[in-house]
This record gives sequence, structure tokens and C-alpha cells, in this order.
Amino acid sequence: MFGVILAGGSGTRFWPKSREQSPKQLLKIVGPRTMIQNTVERLLPLIPASNIFMVTHALHAFETCHQTESFKVPPSQLLAEPVGKNTAAAIGLAAKVLQEKDPNAVMAVFPADHVVKDPKNFHEVLRQGEKIAEKGFLVTLGIQPTRPEQGYGYIKQGQALKGSECAYEVERFVEKPDATTAQKFIDDGGYSWNCGVFLWKVSTILEEIQTHLPDLSEKLSSIASHTVANNRKYGYRILDSEGEKLYDSLPFISIDHAVLEKSKRVAVIPAKIQWSDVGAWDALLDVAEKDGNGNVLTENVTELDCSGSIIQGEDRLIAAVGLKEIIVVDTPDALLVCNKNQAQEVKQLVNQLKEKNRPEVKLGVTVQKPWGSYTVLEKRDGYLVKRLDVNSGERLSLQSHNHRSEHWTVVSGTATVDLDDKQITVKENEFLFIPQFSKHRLANQQNTPLIIIEVQMGDKVDEDDIIRYQDDYDRN
Amino acid sequence: MFGVILAGGSGTRFWPKSREQSPKQLLKIVGPRTMIQNTVERLLPLIPASNIFMVTHALHAFETCHQTESFKVPPSQLLAEPVGKNTAAAIGLAAKVLQEKDPNAVMAVFPADHVVKDPKNFHEVLRQGEKIAEKGFLVTLGIQPTRPEQGYGYIKQGQALKGSECAYEVERFVEKPDATTAQKFIDDGGYSWNCGVFLWKVSTILEEIQTHLPDLSEKLSSIASHTVANNRKYGYRILDSEGEKLYDSLPFISIDHAVLEKSKRVAVIPAKIQWSDVGAWDALLDVAEKDGNGNVLTENVTELDCSGSIIQGEDRLIAAVGLKEIIVVDTPDALLVCNKNQAQEVKQLVNQLKEKNRPEVKLGVTVQKPWGSYTVLEKRDGYLVKRLDVNSGERLSLQSHNHRSEHWTVVSGTATVDLDDKQITVKENEFLFIPQFSKHRLANQQNTPLIIIEVQMGDKVDEDDIIRYQDDYDRN
Repeated sequence: MFGVILAGGSGTRFWPKSREQSPKQLLKIVGPRTMIQNTVERLLPLIPASNIFMVTHALHAFETCHQTESFKVPPSQLLAEPVGKNTAAAIGLAAKVLQEKDPNAVMAVFPADHVVKDPKNFHEVLRQGEKIAEKGFLVTLGIQPTRPEQGYGYIKQGQALKGSECAYEVERFVEKPDATTAQKFIDDGGYSWNCGVFLWKVSTILEEIQTHLPDLSEKLSSIASHTVANNRKYGYRILDSEGEKLYDSLPFISIDHAVLEKSKRVAVIPAKIQWSDVGAWDALLDVAEKDGNGNVLTENVTELDCSGSIIQGEDRLIAAVGLKEIIVVDTPDALLVCNKNQAQEVKQLVNQLKEKNRPEVKLGVTVQKPWGSYTVLEKRDGYLVKRLDVNSGERLSLQSHNHRSEHWTVVSGTATVDLDDKQITVKENEFLFIPQFSKHRLANQQNTPLIIIEVQMGDKVDEDDIIRYQDDYDRN
Repeated sequence: MFGVILAGGSGTRFWPKSREQSPKQLLKIVGPRTMIQNTVERLLPLIPASNIFMVTHALHAFETCHQTESFKVPPSQLLAEPVGKNTAAAIGLAAKVLQEKDPNAVMAVFPADHVVKDPKNFHEVLRQGEKIAEKGFLVTLGIQPTRPEQGYGYIKQGQALKGSECAYEVERFVEKPDATTAQKFIDDGGYSWNCGVFLWKVSTILEEIQTHLPDLSEKLSSIASHTVANNRKYGYRILDSEGEKLYDSLPFISIDHAVLEKSKRVAVIPAKIQWSDVGAWDALLDVAEKDGNGNVLTENVTELDCSGSIIQGEDRLIAAVGLKEIIVVDTPDALLVCNKNQAQEVKQLVNQLKEKNRPEVKLGVTVQKPWGSYTVLEKRDGYLVKRLDVNSGERLSLQSHNHRSEHWTVVSGTATVDLDDKQITVKENEFLFIPQFSKHRLANQQNTPLIIIEVQMGDKVDEDDIIRYQDDYDRN
């Protein structure tokens, strides 16, 4: 069995912890690991790392590689989409790639950012699903509804599937019903939530895509031959320029709408796996550890008389007094304070901020880079102060700037710097000036982390002022 | 008439905007000016700047000078207490100093951090008070109670004062009554709040102190001769070392307890002046400008569906959703989120933080200095990044450090640096290294501000590691 993890989420509902560049699946929302790390780890007892594939946006590809490195998922099994095209395209792409390996294999599809609190039962259900999938069914997992949720898809089960003790035929799908309908489904019984986990044979899903979405099917056939390894550093698979054009022309549609709602061979297995899609901040009250008053707090919080509240911060001190069912999410450059019952509206608020072109929607102060990360300490007219964290063995691109010079103070580790035609070693407590226009490159050739405080100065200090002459990570 | 502004507040209830080093009177709580600036400005139509005196803690003296400079209050009229000894000592000290000028003059006493929204009536009441004071009374202003407040002192008025149309004898004072008693006072009528504004002749109050607090009276006589001008830079008055010792031995007691409650010649003038002591964050709902939904918001706030809330930030983006009567106060290193009805408990919370030795109780990231200010951008093991803002014409002390070296990048203006036996000019976009142990001094001799990004590195990077050889501001 192959596992395909769909890691394409944008996670606006977890702003300000999530940003366009660091969506929910890449964050530690519950526990010490990121959501995608939890997802991979959950599969390993059933699916070896060598059989796990991932589909993500190219923006998040290197960070996804970083995070899954320790689980030994081969980087070449990460497929980077140039643009998000919803689940039909992502699943179709993965199926095309798997077809080359084994068209009769079962592929199981998983969202990268959900929580399953009963992994044992989850594995059991997947094993059952595999058997049904092998018979040519599109298998869905059905979660017993606990509230008249309007944001999910509902599955109406039909008769028990012949020859199976656990699966049912599917009578119909209903995507995002209104409140009255959702309540009726719960009252009537026989409905379950579609949790986005699917099992099917590679050949089955490709046939069904061909039947119900011939346009996608045709284009996918061409696209598969346009996937190429990214570069020697990471080796995840991207599309070449022809492939990118093709991918951009794919229809934007979910697999649910495109195939499951139409197919005649869908089955559902009721799954008691303590699932949550962790859809917004208030979900933490269900999936995270609470104190005696039902609060979910991080370590930096001092509180008096709070209950039912979620208070999540980083380094800054947070003092909370008398909060009842309030969500506080604190990050270095943006703060959210929200009534628990309106957690869904954070999405709407982020859209407002997007319209105002607020930079806090895209990036946090710390930005992950293939070579490490940078953190903005202060930005003001005429200058910018950053901390650069360069991982051992990595180096930035060979570059120059037209508008700024840079002042580097090494506060930890040793920097090896190419500066025009010289190579310079800069040790801890030493300084180097990088003049405007000079070709330079920063590397960490030591086994210890390299930390530099950089002061950029010039008439323009922004990320766009960079000319790259060579880059280990194939960035333009 | 002389004005004496008591600026000794510690302002824990306005944490985290107020800190031990920057109490409420030095902050912009309402409007574009600080509380003490508003207080001085409010007096000017009645009392010329040359007649205004201030008493403050030595810690806050230079900043108080800075803030009142533009109103032309002579710095020599700022009296710096080495230690806070409550209002009897502060008023006694001021009276002793004024006695030398004119023992028959009326002195009016004002808290530095209250709001008066009807300054016209306020001036009228003060003029009336002056006349009563000249007759030898201790005059208090009485504010009509609007709620059974337990935190204030209450004045029970007696008969109308003979020969006056506005003033009454005082039957008794009651300090901080319990809720039942406070409600009874309101129901009974004839009670008003003591707002801490007093008028009396210098000779009257000194006599009364002599009668009711002979110990204070005697020591004050010695202390007055121990006030000395601080230095050529600021010229506010401090106590010499003998005076400091004497001051430290003064009884810690309020003028209300020590004198007003006991004196036979107290009068009260009912004052309709729209007064507020702005005692805690929730008071902003009374004194600050509100939006259509009753919120008091700063510019950096984006909100959806909030009402009756106070959201105060600085540069960081704050997004608020669905808050009802919630207080949010955001600063670079500490965040407060508090139920409006529990604003008084912030004091208790700050005490908890004090017990834990949290640095956020004492200082914010920006610390005012006589020469300008510094702002901590990042502090981690082994290094500290600061922005130094050096005002035009100012210079830091001649100093050295035993544990750290410093890396200075000038991002605005020009620095003149003494480094051991050399003088060095460091211009914008230039760098200077200050080695460990070296004697150095930083000055801004230009007319423009000087801004430096400083990286301190060493086995110990804190404010204590400083040896001062000379200082323009007489700091040890």
C-alpha cells in the first residue's frame, strides 16, 4: 500500500501562527511535532517511509523535506505543485506517478493537518479499507457526527457491502449542508462526516477520473513525464516549465465534487478513530492538553481566573485576567484576540488584512530558507536588522545588491565568506562589511550553527534587491 | 499662587504600558501628551510655569524634566526624592522650599496623573479655593460620587463656611470605606470624593504638620538645607547624602491621614470638574475617545464585531474578533488581556510577577536615559542587540566593560567616539568595534539624531557590567 499525504493547505484559520509561507501542516499546533510530522509518524506502522508520497505547494517543498527528513521519506517522493489546484489535481498527479510503480497497488490518501487520537483503530480501519479498495471500490472513512457542522461533507450510507463486515455502499454525498439540513442528518442517522481519507487502487481512481473528468485525465497523462528532480540539495520533484504550464491549466476542483459524488463504486467504512480536522483555533479545546480550568496555555502565560480559554504565545510574557472562552494567539509581529465562538471568522479577518496588503498575512518575522532561516529584528526607514541562522553545511546563493550594503557581526559559529575575489573567515565576535554591488556568498562549513546579526543599509532594503549568480537550491 | 505637582506614582495598574521605570504620569494614556504634560498644561492659565514645582522620585527626575521642558517649568523647581515617602513628606518638602520664597503664599497641590475634563470650572474652583486658603483653611475639592467606590477617601461636608458662597466646613474624612458604607454615603448625601487637590497657605500647612506630625516637621527643617542642584545638564534638585539619610527616616504617611483627618480647619469646595483619577485600564472608557461601538482602539487594531473593549497597542498588528468588554494592552515584551470588570486585579498580577522577579515589571524594551534611550532588539545567551538613540548634543558616560565587547553600526547621524586615547568619527553606514576593557565614550555632536545598532558580546551581557569614569549626568 502506498500513502499519499496532501499537504497543500493554506491555513488562514490558524493565523497569526500560520502564514501563507508557513501553513498549518508545517506548524506545531498540537504537541512537540508539526502536523505533517504527526501525520507521517501515524502512517509508519502501516506504510513504510519508502512508500509514502507527499504533494505540496512548491513554496513549502524544502521545509516539508526538512520536516520529514528524520522519518526517511525519500525527498524524490515529494511532488511540488507550482500552483494549488485542489485535491482532484493533486491526487491525479500522485496516481500518475504511482502508476509507473504499480498500477494495481492501493493508494491511501491523507490530509497532512488532521488529528487522529486513536491510531490503533485508525490502522485497523485502513487495513479493512485496503481490502475493499483491492476489490475496485473508492473507499471513504465515515466519522460519526457529534454536532450539526456546516463546514464538512456528509456521506449517507446505503446497504452493507456484500462480503464485508465493516463497509457500506454510499447512497449519496452532501457537501456543506445548511444548519437545518445538518441537524436533520444527525436526527435521521446513517450519515457520517467525510474526513478526507480515501483508499483506492491507482488504476481505479485513474479510470474514475477519466470517466468523470476527461480533461484532467488527458492533461495528467502529459504532466507525469514533466516531473523532474529539483536539485542535488533536496531532490524533491518539481515540474519543468512545460509541466508548469500544463498544471496551471488543470481544473480547480476537489476529488469529492469531481469523482466521489458521481462514481457508482464508492464505499464507506464507519471509523471510530477520534478524528479532528483541527479546523480553527477553538479545535484546540478538543485535541490539546488542558489545565484544571479547561484552558490550553503555553509556558509563557501567567493567568488569574481564566477558564475555557486558549492562550498561545512564544517568548513574550502574556498576562491574562478573568478571560472566559477567549482565544489569544501571540506572535512577534501580530496578535489575535478572539471570542471562542467566532474562531471561524479569523479567516474572514485574514481576508480583510490581505485586501489591505498587510505583510503579516504572508510572512512572519522568522522566514524558513533552504539554508536555515532569517528573523527580522527591526525594520525602519533606511535600515533593517536581521538575525541569520545558517545551518551546518549550507550556504546562501552567490549574490549582490544594488541598493544596500550589509554589516555582519558573527555572534555564534564561524562564517566562510566569498567577497568578490577573496575568501574570508569570520569568527565569533568578528565583523565583516559587505559593500553595495559586491558579489558575496555566506557559508557555514562548520559542524555548529552559524548566527549572524546583519544590519542592512541603503535607499531600499527589501528581499527583492538580490541578484543571484549561483544557488545551491536552484532559486532564480 | 504656587502649584505643586506630586509625580510619585508607580502605576502598577497600568502595566504593561507602565513599568517601575516609566510610571503612569510619564505615559501617554489619554491623547497625544503624557499625563504630567496634561497636568502642567491645565495649570498654566492660572499658575505661570515659573511658579510650578514638582516632586518626583529621583529615578524619574530627568524624564520629568524632559517632558516639562517645553512648558518652561524651571528644572530647579523639580524636587527629586531619593525614596518615596507618601504625600505628607513630599508636600512638606515642597512647603519648606516655598517657605523660603514666600511663607504667606498659597500653594495648590495636584496629582500628576489625573484627568479633568472641565478645565474652565476647574480654574474657577481653584480661584475660589485660593481665597479660602488665604483665610487660613486647608481646602479640599469634593467630587460628587457616581458609584460606591471603595478605593477613594470620602469627605462629609458640614455647615456652609461663613463668608463663602461655595465652601463648607468638613465634618469628617473616611478613607476607603467598605462597599456597604460607601453605598450608605451615597444614599445619605453630603459626602464627596477627595480628589487629592488641595489649597492652603505655606505657613498653614507647615503649622498643621508641626501640630500633627512633629517628627516630620522637625526633620523637614533640616532637610530643606540639604537640597542641591543635580548638575549642569538638568539642574533639578536632589538631596545631598546627609539629606538622603534624613529623608529615608521620614514617616511614610499620606497628608490625608497625617493632617486632614485631624485638623480643625479643613474646608471643602464641591467641584464639578469632570474628574477621573484614571485608576486602572477600564477608566479609559470614561476619559478616552470611543468608536461607534464603545471601543477605545489604537491605530494598529483591525477588529470585527467588538464592543466596549479597550485595545491599546504600539507597532504590532492586533486583530480582534468578537470581544465584549475585554482589555488588551500590547507592548513589545509583555501582553495583558483582561476582563474589563477585573481591571483592578492587574495590580495583584503585577505583584505576582514581581515575586517571580520578572524583568517586565521594571523595564520595557525601550529605556529612557538622560542622553536619549536604548531599545533591546534581541537578548540571547552570549549576545544582546540594542538600538541606541542619542539625542543631539548629548553624550554617554566615559566607561568600560569587563565582560563584553561591542559592535556599533551607525544607521543614522554621526557618532563622535572617544576610544582609549583616540577620537574617532563614525558616519552613517560605518562601523566601529569597541574591545572589552577599552575606555570609550559615545557622543552626538550633530544637530540630527544619532542612531546606532549595537551588538554586545561576552560571557555576561547586562546593564551592571559598566565602569563609569566620568558622567555628564552625575550617575555613579
